[in-house]
Amino acid sequence: MPGAGRAAGVRRLRPQPSEEPPAQEEDQDLLLAAAYVSDAQYNRNVPFETSPRAIRLYYFYNHWTMQVVIYFFICVNLSLALFEEPALFPLPFLATSIAEVLCLTAFFGRLVHFAKVTPQMVFWKDMKNICIMVTIVLTLIDLIIYGSLEAVNIHSVRWSRALRPVFLINFPESRQIRRTFRSIRNTLPDILYVFLLFMFSVLIFSLMALKLFGDRGLQTVEGLPYFTNILEIAFELYVLVTTANSPDVMMPAYNVNWWYSLYFITYIIINTYIFMSVFLAVVYNNYRKHLKNEIRKLAYLKRHKMIEAFNILKVKVGTEFVVTEARWKRLARIVMPHISSPHLELLLRVSDEGQKGHVDKMNFLRLADLLNIQVVTINIKRHPLEEWMPRVYQSSASLLVQRMVRHRFDTLIIMAALVATVANTTIQSARKYNSQQILDIVLILRILRLLRIIVSIQRFRLIVTTLINIGPTILTFGGLVLVVYYVFAIIGMEAFHGKVRFFDPNFTTPDALVCGNPALKDSAFARDRYCKNNFNDLASSLIVLMELTVVNQWHILAGGFALVTHQAAKLYFLSFHVVVVILIVNIFIAFILEAFFVAYSLEKSEIETAIEKKIQELGVGIQEEEMQDGKLVDNMDAKDSGFSGDDGDNKRKSLKGLYFRIASKKYRTVDALLQQMFESEIAPEDEGPSLDEILNFSPGDIYPKNPNFENSA
Amino acid sequence: MPGAGRAAGVRRLRPQPSEEPPAQEEDQDLLLAAAYVSDAQYNRNVPFETSPRAIRLYYFYNHWTMQVVIYFFICVNLSLALFEEPALFPLPFLATSIAEVLCLTAFFGRLVHFAKVTPQMVFWKDMKNICIMVTIVLTLIDLIIYGSLEAVNIHSVRWSRALRPVFLINFPESRQIRRTFRSIRNTLPDILYVFLLFMFSVLIFSLMALKLFGDRGLQTVEGLPYFTNILEIAFELYVLVTTANSPDVMMPAYNVNWWYSLYFITYIIINTYIFMSVFLAVVYNNYRKHLKNEIRKLAYLKRHKMIEAFNILKVKVGTEFVVTEARWKRLARIVMPHISSPHLELLLRVSDEGQKGHVDKMNFLRLADLLNIQVVTINIKRHPLEEWMPRVYQSSASLLVQRMVRHRFDTLIIMAALVATVANTTIQSARKYNSQQILDIVLILRILRLLRIIVSIQRFRLIVTTLINIGPTILTFGGLVLVVYYVFAIIGMEAFHGKVRFFDPNFTTPDALVCGNPALKDSAFARDRYCKNNFNDLASSLIVLMELTVVNQWHILAGGFALVTHQAAKLYFLSFHVVVVILIVNIFIAFILEAFFVAYSLEKSEIETAIEKKIQELGVGIQEEEMQDGKLVDNMDAKDSGFSGDDGDNKRKSLKGLYFRIASKKYRTVDALLQQMFESEIAPEDEGPSLDEILNFSPGDIYPKNPNFENSA
Repeated sequence: MPGAGRAAGVRRLRPQPSEEPPAQEEDQDLLLAAAYVSDAQYNRNVPFETSPRAIRLYYFYNHWTMQVVIYFFICVNLSLALFEEPALFPLPFLATSIAEVLCLTAFFGRLVHFAKVTPQMVFWKDMKNICIMVTIVLTLIDLIIYGSLEAVNIHSVRWSRALRPVFLINFPESRQIRRTFRSIRNTLPDILYVFLLFMFSVLIFSLMALKLFGDRGLQTVEGLPYFTNILEIAFELYVLVTTANSPDVMMPAYNVNWWYSLYFITYIIINTYIFMSVFLAVVYNNYRKHLKNEIRKLAYLKRHKMIEAFNILKVKVGTEFVVTEARWKRLARIVMPHISSPHLELLLRVSDEGQKGHVDKMNFLRLADLLNIQVVTINIKRHPLEEWMPRVYQSSASLLVQRMVRHRFDTLIIMAALVATVANTTIQSARKYNSQQILDIVLILRILRLLRIIVSIQRFRLIVTTLINIGPTILTFGGLVLVVYYVFAIIGMEAFHGKVRFFDPNFTTPDALVCGNPALKDSAFARDRYCKNNFNDLASSLIVLMELTVVNQWHILAGGFALVTHQAAKLYFLSFHVVVVILIVNIFIAFILEAFFVAYSLEKSEIETAIEKKIQELGVGIQEEEMQDGKLVDNMDAKDSGFSGDDGDNKRKSLKGLYFRIASKKYRTVDALLQQMFESEIAPEDEGPSLDEILNFSPGDIYPKNPNFENSA
Repeated sequence: MPGAGRAAGVRRLRPQPSEEPPAQEEDQDLLLAAAYVSDAQYNRNVPFETSPRAIRLYYFYNHWTMQVVIYFFICVNLSLALFEEPALFPLPFLATSIAEVLCLTAFFGRLVHFAKVTPQMVFWKDMKNICIMVTIVLTLIDLIIYGSLEAVNIHSVRWSRALRPVFLINFPESRQIRRTFRSIRNTLPDILYVFLLFMFSVLIFSLMALKLFGDRGLQTVEGLPYFTNILEIAFELYVLVTTANSPDVMMPAYNVNWWYSLYFITYIIINTYIFMSVFLAVVYNNYRKHLKNEIRKLAYLKRHKMIEAFNILKVKVGTEFVVTEARWKRLARIVMPHISSPHLELLLRVSDEGQKGHVDKMNFLRLADLLNIQVVTINIKRHPLEEWMPRVYQSSASLLVQRMVRHRFDTLIIMAALVATVANTTIQSARKYNSQQILDIVLILRILRLLRIIVSIQRFRLIVTTLINIGPTILTFGGLVLVVYYVFAIIGMEAFHGKVRFFDPNFTTPDALVCGNPALKDSAFARDRYCKNNFNDLASSLIVLMELTVVNQWHILAGGFALVTHQAAKLYFLSFHVVVVILIVNIFIAFILEAFFVAYSLEKSEIETAIEKKIQELGVGIQEEEMQDGKLVDNMDAKDSGFSGDDGDNKRKSLKGLYFRIASKKYRTVDALLQQMFESEIAPEDEGPSLDEILNFSPGDIYPKNPNFENSA
């Protein structure tokens, strides 16, 4: 992205065509323009060379098969940890290392491909590419060292495994994950200051605790000395901030004197309630600021690309520059090779409203958005029953059936229940004793039908649809969490592998009771039977990390692993808490808060993009709600009559039954909604700032310039 | 408040004075106008009768001694719980009941006073007054029943004690606490829908758990059956949402099969992370909406009162209505009896800029705000040293001393350290062994000096000053929490009093180990030595409730009290969690988030009220920052020279050294900042909507009308 400006500059200079250029050059121009339009359509921001060969390579680079292949190799590479020591499914080192080299080759190939597409200068200035190359080299070095040491039976550490998520983050396709990472990075300075203040407060309270309780000879429930060591106090108080050891940490002092509880209450109010909220406030504030900045950037970059495409194809007609109909159609066919003729006609009708035979600049700029709108063919045939027996069809019982049938959501549940019932009867005959259980499952499935009632209530609908909209972005968080978890899991496996072992679920042997490690005797870790919470393979590690994310009892886990290794092991758990709970969980909460705020503010306001307005004006749009509520046919009838009314044009006739399906606001993601909000604010003729300006947007800029955009979210 | 419109309507009709009215009526008018101005100044919204007697009673009603007396009785009434059975400091029933009757008499007296001030219609329509009366009657009935039963040695329940916080909430002075309660009430419908969805989800997961784990004969760590009873499962899963039993609740299933952990992970993601964030989002959204609505209401009501006052006092001069200087001065003297003559001159100078001998409407409306601005007398004398030995004074060492002396914040700390050192030396001589400890305390106090460095860094300053600004409002939350805690504590004491007992801190006797109740044998409650967490007196109860607010281990507490009474006791703990953690703690977090957002948005923008602008224009204002940073004298010199420059007017001379001290933005509360933001948006000549409209503002109205106000916060 940082080099898009230069890429555009590199494009060979071409005289502004005032008439149709020769066929050869025309093809090249169309290909280039189509690449820009396609990038705008999918919000891709890869700067590419504009030589014919580079453009063709760029098309290949963006092909979906290439993307699937690269994600396949990323998955294989990440999942290698399941088969390497400490393995869930052990494979010999040779097998995993060959697989890894294969993956590295694929990554390198992809990178070389990218280097051929993008200008050299841009390629070498992009940190993402450097990161990938360095990681490939480091991994190879590590593989060689580890392999040769293994050959002479010296066991060493496969440290490069912690770098594997680099590939997931740094390929251009993982834009969303990178954005969340950027969001974290941007938040860091602000968070740091609050964190320092917070640590200062914890330190002061630790000193006070040492003075207050240190010399009293108090004991914890486990009979250990209470609050005598400043480091231990600081750790206990940090744990208290996460509330994981409340009220246990207070009890020994509280048992001695009522008044000591005031110390802990003060501590909790200041550090748990106030400071933790401040962390959320800082993270949320930054998240919002940067989210809007990124969306503004994306919107302007999109417009910029469409202007580039227009400038390539424009010809002068009268006083204004336009794109001729023939050229416009060829362009659309290149961008969307499988587009049907009626669909193309429909697009043209929206773009060339006055049927002048060419598309003007404003309408051309909308092409990317137009291509993103789903087009449906509506079957306006009536139900056969209605034609044969109109009275029966219109009866109230029949209408009820119709209404029931039309609810797709519901249909799914009924289908599921049906499948389960069928499964039930078949299995019932096979194994008698299981029938009750399956009947119950069917029952549970039928309870899910309650969801239908829930969705039908307006208040519930807002919540449920917002939750559904959040879905896709939660996957982005899934990617982010995976990256962090993976790194911590690899480190955890190297540090704690085999120290704690799980024997059997009934804990019958003495070894099982201390998790196979005498150091855990009488520890809270062993007493709570946490033996299966270990770092002995990737899956177990990930589950331990999940438990640490939930926070509760994390000090027991930390304490257990500190006992079997060294007290410094607690640092691993502390840093995990800071990174995951203070940063990532707060960003997650910030994301959900923002999603709900956008949903609540949209409940009241009507934001329509210029295209949607135009489509509705022309009467060729239908709302998603209409599709789902079954009002469709009635509406279509009304629309059709108006549509085919005045002019008996042949072209119009061919469009009959074809409509743009405009997704209802409630089924869009937060990002899409925000981008739409922002785009509705940019005037159609606004060309936006220059590319360099766009790329250097700082979050602060957004406030004074776009008060309404800021306001509505 | 709901009757203010009517109160204004009741005011006797008076011909619009076009010239000075007779002296008697003039006095009445001034008194009435002053009451309006004073109400505007303190944001009081009590509708009062306008008869001369009622106005005088109203002055008495608002006198600070009356307020102190009423708060004293409220405190006495609430603290009676410390002396009643189960008592921390037992007193005979006769003593506490006499004290309670005294309090009730005081409350009734205050209410009668209020009834004489406010119009009858308004009084009887105000729910607050009805609430107080009903509570007084109920308390008396309860006292009589309890007393007579006690006389024949039958022990009954003093249920009316749970109603005591009604007095704290419902007297007009507790506006802030009521506002937070209103905020909760307004949030309830939205929260309810999310809560239903959430409970639905918990139920579905409970059913699934029963099917998945119910028949496997698994056992918990304590050897109890695992997930066999649907009610217990629902409770355990509710506890899991609060994370208090993670990962223990998962371990038995996880020990059997790795895959079962997926069930729990899904549950936690959906219910803990997503639903709990949605609760926060809903609470925060409502909090914001209503906060701004309330502030808008307050701002318009203030303006409304000032317009009332103006209409009473106005006379026609030329084409416009104005208030004469003499009248204006008399009014100011009534509102602020102890105002000094130079101060009054200064106010007049700002209000009557052109020295026309009268104050116009726009300037009159500002009076209430003007009176709220602190006025300081600046001593512009130079330091004697500077006059005697300018060279020594200007030396760098001396400048350092000056700079050090000027930091008040720091001076405080040095003083504290000094006092401690003195205390140290005196005690040291008395008791030798204690010296080290006190020396350490001095050391800790000196560490606090680090705060000075922290405040001097810009980034830290924003955080610290915002935290300081939050202070006063946190006290409001204190009041709110006190009310809820008190009610739950009274109920808790009636239900669980004496069931769990604490014997000695060392748990030496078998009775001590089971908290004096055999039902607790082998329970987690006794094992964790939670005996002192009981409801045997008010103080203990409040601490238990605090522990429940922190959430961790609350299921152990709930389980313990359920063992010694009945499983239904868990409902008490569940309802406490819903009320305090889901509602109040989230409102608290919302409040802190909003405070930080206001602080962050103010960091960039400059919002100045019209008055501040005017004061600065006239050169009679100084910023708080200037006061503290010691730049004052220099600035004053500069200002003075300009001030006394052109006109040698006597009046001006008398003002010399008197300035308005304008509090810097960073030291204001969130409310004050928001109100200021909003007021800076209302045009000075805007009379605002009618009173009835103001009182019926709904939160929705605010968005379309005031985009910028909405935006800046």
